[in-house]
Amino acid sequence: MPSSYPTRELCEFLARFTLSDVPPHVVERTKDLFLDWIASALAGKDAPAIRRLQEFAVAMGPQQGPSEVLVDRRRTSPWFAALVNAAASHVVEQDDVHNGSVLHPAAVVFPAVLAAAQAEGKSGAQLLTAAIAGYEAGIRIGEFMGRSHYRVFHTTGTVGTLAAAAAVAKLYGLDAEGINQALGSAGTQAAGLWEFLRDAADSKQLHTAKAAADGLMSAHLARAGFTGARRILEGAQGMAAGMSSDADPARLTDGLGTRWATAETSFKFFASCRHTHPAADALKALMQRERLDPEQIASVTAHVHQGAIDVLGPVVDPVTIHQAKFSMGTVLGLVAWHGHAGLGEFEQHGLRDARVAAFRDKVTMALDAEINAAYPRQWIGRVTVATTDGRTLEARVDVPKGDPDNTLSRPELEAKALQLAAFRQGASEAEMRTIIARVWALEHTESMADWLPAAA
Amino acid sequence: MPSSYPTRELCEFLARFTLSDVPPHVVERTKDLFLDWIASALAGKDAPAIRRLQEFAVAMGPQQGPSEVLVDRRRTSPWFAALVNAAASHVVEQDDVHNGSVLHPAAVVFPAVLAAAQAEGKSGAQLLTAAIAGYEAGIRIGEFMGRSHYRVFHTTGTVGTLAAAAAVAKLYGLDAEGINQALGSAGTQAAGLWEFLRDAADSKQLHTAKAAADGLMSAHLARAGFTGARRILEGAQGMAAGMSSDADPARLTDGLGTRWATAETSFKFFASCRHTHPAADALKALMQRERLDPEQIASVTAHVHQGAIDVLGPVVDPVTIHQAKFSMGTVLGLVAWHGHAGLGEFEQHGLRDARVAAFRDKVTMALDAEINAAYPRQWIGRVTVATTDGRTLEARVDVPKGDPDNTLSRPELEAKALQLAAFRQGASEAEMRTIIARVWALEHTESMADWLPAAA
Repeated sequence: MPSSYPTRELCEFLARFTLSDVPPHVVERTKDLFLDWIASALAGKDAPAIRRLQEFAVAMGPQQGPSEVLVDRRRTSPWFAALVNAAASHVVEQDDVHNGSVLHPAAVVFPAVLAAAQAEGKSGAQLLTAAIAGYEAGIRIGEFMGRSHYRVFHTTGTVGTLAAAAAVAKLYGLDAEGINQALGSAGTQAAGLWEFLRDAADSKQLHTAKAAADGLMSAHLARAGFTGARRILEGAQGMAAGMSSDADPARLTDGLGTRWATAETSFKFFASCRHTHPAADALKALMQRERLDPEQIASVTAHVHQGAIDVLGPVVDPVTIHQAKFSMGTVLGLVAWHGHAGLGEFEQHGLRDARVAAFRDKVTMALDAEINAAYPRQWIGRVTVATTDGRTLEARVDVPKGDPDNTLSRPELEAKALQLAAFRQGASEAEMRTIIARVWALEHTESMADWLPAAA
Repeated sequence: MPSSYPTRELCEFLARFTLSDVPPHVVERTKDLFLDWIASALAGKDAPAIRRLQEFAVAMGPQQGPSEVLVDRRRTSPWFAALVNAAASHVVEQDDVHNGSVLHPAAVVFPAVLAAAQAEGKSGAQLLTAAIAGYEAGIRIGEFMGRSHYRVFHTTGTVGTLAAAAAVAKLYGLDAEGINQALGSAGTQAAGLWEFLRDAADSKQLHTAKAAADGLMSAHLARAGFTGARRILEGAQGMAAGMSSDADPARLTDGLGTRWATAETSFKFFASCRHTHPAADALKALMQRERLDPEQIASVTAHVHQGAIDVLGPVVDPVTIHQAKFSMGTVLGLVAWHGHAGLGEFEQHGLRDARVAAFRDKVTMALDAEINAAYPRQWIGRVTVATTDGRTLEARVDVPKGDPDNTLSRPELEAKALQLAAFRQGASEAEMRTIIARVWALEHTESMADWLPAAA
């Protein structure tokens, strides 16, 4: 295929590769990502936005089916299971992120492939292969759409639809043409705008919900012969033409078969928007290094890339815990006063702690040319702190905690998973330990149909 | 509310007006539009793309419910009924269009309100009021998004999601805040790209399907308290920011309560893309005036607006009947050789008639400055014909057949409805005559729950 048709080259690769082509460390990392995703989905239990989507699934979907909704262990059709699980996994802001594409792949890929794999009785190896296809496609498409796209569009909503479609199309065993058709139907459904940030609205979960479900729908339709635009990405009236001004077609085929972008994905250590993490790491390091107490801090400047300003800038006075996760000042306040900005810190202190609120007003963001130039490949954290006794201190973190070069170990991932499961009793400790063991042995699972531990 | 927040002004109006505020001729016209829509939906029966969506509804949706799928008379939940009915009503290209917004309101508004009204046992008057809310909102939002949007985006897919959401939110009796929330969730799901035209792909029906179903979903979620961005249209990271370069906020509130845009909607006389109709009318008039036979025509230049070139230009060599409906040459060839480009002409001669295919190659489109300046307010048709004996003839039609100033009479609408019902035996003549009588009495219907004639 000529490079004038990079979408097709991508589809040829997605159709061709098998799990034996994937380096073992990438397969292992995919299992890490899957565990991290399950735990994130369980932690979404009882969130109001998720309850509304559960009720929608009951009102509009079948009352039984092959696919499980993790937060309530109901079974329904794959479309609704994907919908609710995707929303649930994106609500506590602990799900993974890929730096270069600024995509949250887990929240859109795994709900779609798990729901479809349960319905089709696919194996653990098939699920892993399909998930890798989703990550490889989604990450490259996100990079292709560029930074201009992310300024207005929530890439996980838009590009996530295609990532989910690619994953399920691979699970179904579609050929390159079939995957291409699935991407066509997915791309023409791709949506998601950042405007909700200003209102602390529930759209972020709606975006992952619809991306996963509509991606699954696109693959389902493609398998049945329903067609879509083949050049949905690069065509004259395709996604890039409509929603990007700096699209780079070369990214779509970057290192196919040699670069495994799945393994570049970062885990979240803090329970907040990833754009807050580099500065949070830097502030934490600075306070430890200088043995600084929070009351000694007069002001903090977080030096950031433009993407952080686009996404965090609209959040001035957070009114919900979810919105507080997009407030740089709140995150730094939690780190300063409570040492961490995890699930528990947000619950207890994210909105109601006057010291955190006062700290928030001491924080400003400033666009930094070097950091902005390195982004999105590298997410550098740098803070300047003015102390109450007149000193100016600075710290910098080049690789924030959770990035591939500073990743979470399996014990750390297991601890995080147990914590997320316990957060709203999404699963008991025994259930979560069973899930952990099953994920580590996933490639040997014959069928995903009844893979989850039976509901208590 | 200040004009800096026109979306809210629009929502206030939508929440406030009652059917008694609507001029009687607008109510009557809405009934015309509803009948025209039902007939269009029935004509979608057996189309392959519609069958795939029916199968999807069976695979993913409940096997029973309050809302009917018109083409197979199955009952399911409102989401799936809206999905299939919306797709079905847009496949034979006989559904209505509003000139100024270049929106097909019926195909997105009626499937959503009918499915929801059946589920909620709403009255005929409530359905009409809700449909008018959908038309008034959708048309203004389409005009707001402007011509730049339509160049890449299929407005009926994008804006259609908000039109359907407004309609169902009105049906539910939501207040201005609730309608605003519904629009927020709808706008962040709004999608639909023209790229499918090049491949004769099935996306056009997917667009109306998803717009109607997702709009319904947005209203359903808003009623339950699920929130969306309030300034989804005009906000800094809203729809206009992402998908338009000539958005005009004044259009959102244009003549609220005095201008009833619903009644500006045009009916389709030809069974093809509306952009072909003005030229088809002009060619028909020219051939009648000059008593010209098709073999006397050496070439035709159709003078058009830019929108016609954007949408029809990609279709060079149509391979499906649906794609032929977007081929200016095919439409003019049918008019020239068969006197009409209706459903039957497309079926019998749209692809397989060598004379029509030969005529197609004699047709070119040319951008016309005056026509382009009048568009989209006015859709002027002008053709220049070169005859085989060396003459140059010209004809112009300022108001194409079906526009409000040249509309279809009730007898013409009834005849069209009977023809569409008979096309694939979507309904028997007796059933369709019952439907016609019920539509004309719609405002007196107490409940839409079992409004359709019982399945044969």
